[in-house]
Amino acid sequence: MNYLIIRYIVGMTLILEGALMVPSCVVAVIYGESALWPLVISVLACVAFGMLLRGKRPDNSVFFAREGFVAVALSWLAISVMGAVPFVLSGAIPDPVQALFEAVSGFTTTGASILAEVEPLPKSILFWRSFTHWIGGMGVLVFLLTLLPMSGGFHMSLMKAESPGPSVSRLVPKVQTTAKILYLIYIGMTVIEVCLLLLGRMPLFDALTLSFGTAGTGGFGVRNDSIASYSVYNQVVITVFMILFGINFNAYFFILFHKAAAAFKMEEVRAYLGIILAAVLIVTFNVWRYGLFDSLAKAFQQAAFQVASIITTTGYSTVDFDLWPEMSRTVLVMIMFIGACSGSTGGGIKVSRIVILFKTVRKEIWTYVHPDGVMKVRMDGKSVDHEVVRATNVFFAAYFAVFSISVLLLSIDNLDAVTNFTAVAATLNNIGPGLSLVGPSTNYSVYSARALLVMIFDMLAGRLELFPLLVLLSGNTWKKF
Amino acid sequence: MNYLIIRYIVGMTLILEGALMVPSCVVAVIYGESALWPLVISVLACVAFGMLLRGKRPDNSVFFAREGFVAVALSWLAISVMGAVPFVLSGAIPDPVQALFEAVSGFTTTGASILAEVEPLPKSILFWRSFTHWIGGMGVLVFLLTLLPMSGGFHMSLMKAESPGPSVSRLVPKVQTTAKILYLIYIGMTVIEVCLLLLGRMPLFDALTLSFGTAGTGGFGVRNDSIASYSVYNQVVITVFMILFGINFNAYFFILFHKAAAAFKMEEVRAYLGIILAAVLIVTFNVWRYGLFDSLAKAFQQAAFQVASIITTTGYSTVDFDLWPEMSRTVLVMIMFIGACSGSTGGGIKVSRIVILFKTVRKEIWTYVHPDGVMKVRMDGKSVDHEVVRATNVFFAAYFAVFSISVLLLSIDNLDAVTNFTAVAATLNNIGPGLSLVGPSTNYSVYSARALLVMIFDMLAGRLELFPLLVLLSGNTWKKF
Repeated sequence: MNYLIIRYIVGMTLILEGALMVPSCVVAVIYGESALWPLVISVLACVAFGMLLRGKRPDNSVFFAREGFVAVALSWLAISVMGAVPFVLSGAIPDPVQALFEAVSGFTTTGASILAEVEPLPKSILFWRSFTHWIGGMGVLVFLLTLLPMSGGFHMSLMKAESPGPSVSRLVPKVQTTAKILYLIYIGMTVIEVCLLLLGRMPLFDALTLSFGTAGTGGFGVRNDSIASYSVYNQVVITVFMILFGINFNAYFFILFHKAAAAFKMEEVRAYLGIILAAVLIVTFNVWRYGLFDSLAKAFQQAAFQVASIITTTGYSTVDFDLWPEMSRTVLVMIMFIGACSGSTGGGIKVSRIVILFKTVRKEIWTYVHPDGVMKVRMDGKSVDHEVVRATNVFFAAYFAVFSISVLLLSIDNLDAVTNFTAVAATLNNIGPGLSLVGPSTNYSVYSARALLVMIFDMLAGRLELFPLLVLLSGNTWKKF
Repeated sequence: MNYLIIRYIVGMTLILEGALMVPSCVVAVIYGESALWPLVISVLACVAFGMLLRGKRPDNSVFFAREGFVAVALSWLAISVMGAVPFVLSGAIPDPVQALFEAVSGFTTTGASILAEVEPLPKSILFWRSFTHWIGGMGVLVFLLTLLPMSGGFHMSLMKAESPGPSVSRLVPKVQTTAKILYLIYIGMTVIEVCLLLLGRMPLFDALTLSFGTAGTGGFGVRNDSIASYSVYNQVVITVFMILFGINFNAYFFILFHKAAAAFKMEEVRAYLGIILAAVLIVTFNVWRYGLFDSLAKAFQQAAFQVASIITTTGYSTVDFDLWPEMSRTVLVMIMFIGACSGSTGGGIKVSRIVILFKTVRKEIWTYVHPDGVMKVRMDGKSVDHEVVRATNVFFAAYFAVFSISVLLLSIDNLDAVTNFTAVAATLNNIGPGLSLVGPSTNYSVYSARALLVMIFDMLAGRLELFPLLVLLSGNTWKKF
């Protein structure tokens, strides 16, 4: 293991985090808030610890998947711990475990909160809380590697470890350039959303923070009722942008570089939009049948918002969908697991993995029926690499192992099964609200510190797609060899 | 597709079912019950339909996995429909869908019932109900193939399609002889259990029916309170035999043929016993801590009974474990999915599949840490065939697809999530009772006929390990080619 380079990366990440806290200090100055000093201290602490860890640039540039995983896992742990400092110092969340939960929830773009009310918090703290979504959405290390002049193997290993989905494709030959293009698309789309929300007469502060939450598919709001009290126009804008940020960013690359046809042919994107359509129709019909809304149009608009919010793993809410009929709740729980497209900012299992699994089952049945025939699993017209199918299967096995053990550990608190099951689903898939005691109108402070630590692990494991954290925990990783 | 041989097999199976109904007629004669005539009519109907379907012995003996799957799926559908006839004709269960549910629950060794009370039923009908467990446990087609003089490819394809677990091993070179040995072990162990229960002063009728239910890991009882009102001695006997019938029968073969060391080295058996031990200890401690039992010994005995009943997918109960604390309920739900050993009469995903999955995850982590190393997934000292790993993964994908779609379809009835989730878990894994509205003290009549049909599919899909039913439903199977 190349320890020096891992220290270097974690150190650089902390320095970067310090820089990314500066806008929150500016907000504190603008609103004249006393939270300025806690924020400034946090900036200085990030930079100081970062400098200390970084040391000088290491000569040994050996960098394998192992180093990538460990560096990413440790960097995410480090920024989460330091990201919680402003919450504790400002008194917004005095309990350190709860503050860490909130920070991890922010960076992993989960949006699960232990706060019953957010409106009493200083604006600058709310700004930081939402900004962590934006940083975590695209990946802080992907951002770092757009800045660091290093060799290609290093970039690819880091990007693979931090980016969601079963495979990482380079849009252009250079990984660093790929990362830069992705970040430019991300910034561009965020700016457009802010402008559209401002057009709908939303205050600038709300437009910025809610756009950060949408772009990162996070879900922290700045009002106690999440998105419920904004205008229908603004709810629709957010619905559309949640869906857009859940699409594989390669599609936008194709559109930008005049290959729109390729974007519309992407099977994952089509499956994603198809699932959204089916889910919205079922939920609309179901809530309409039970008479929850005055008009079919209103039912459709609310169903679309909630479906988009959950499948993209954002977690904003406009109504308490825990009160919806069972079929709607079941659809919402199912799409919790599906999640958004790979290569988007969304979490969950990812649509492409679900598509690959369905295709392997179809192939299996086909093979039984045609004992002499040969069928290959294909995506976008190309045969899927055997290694991708295998990795997808292993991901599933690890996913259900982590899921089951987490539910078991939460059950010690003796809350009900729906709460535990959906709490793990909502944190491991980086969504935010679950059902029952962790539904949209409640929060995660019902759980003990032990349970919160389990979910902190789940949020990080979900965001980093399990293996970086599992490698970090494996005894093998730390043996000398 | 070789339609003639499929007709022949389904016909022979029905004739065999008619023969297997005769003992129930004898019970009706002994107790002088009016259910005799419905039973006799059912015997005649089975034989008549069987003769009609069978035709003459087909010359074309082409028989692939496809024919095996379709023959097994259709045979199980046929015996289920005919097995429900005595329930309807005797007036025990007048509703045809409910009667079919009960028959499928019997043959698939699920033990889920739509009956609120079983004591008012005629003894002969109760006998038939429990006997279906015994028939279904080892597999009716495996029984048939011990009788049919046919070529080896035929036997292997049938056995593969009906036997549980990721791979079928022949204990001796001839498949037919393997099947005969397995049936002899099955009969021998059932007889021993009956004797031990009689020693505990259980009435003969109860000893027979409960042994059928234990041997097949079914779960239908003959008293309204399942096993609660029998003596502790008899509860312990049943606990031990449930665990024994959940062990891979190859272990008994090894012991019988003086290779006991091989039996105790079987990794699946060790994992199975280890999981049982861990689950019993957690549940004992948990219910003890919440003060549900007077003594730790009583808590242990009850925990052992319930854990054994659920992990072996039997489904007998001595207490209403739906009232236990959440951690115990969570452990019970988790072992619902694990199930018993492959090559046993138990259902569920099977311990060997779980072991293989854990090993693939461990291997994945190992590979990330040792980029140049090679590690193989091994079981019982031998490297696991790549094909078995692949089939295990595909099984998982199909399992979760069937599971999710079933929960969605049940949710239309608008019952609560725990009921729907555990109802599917309890039927797809062939257990019997779930939690909440389908807990041990309640029954499945809360569901609509549509929901019961979904669960009838799940029980058959679970018992036949998905693919026979999926192949039957696939359009490809019925195309001319």
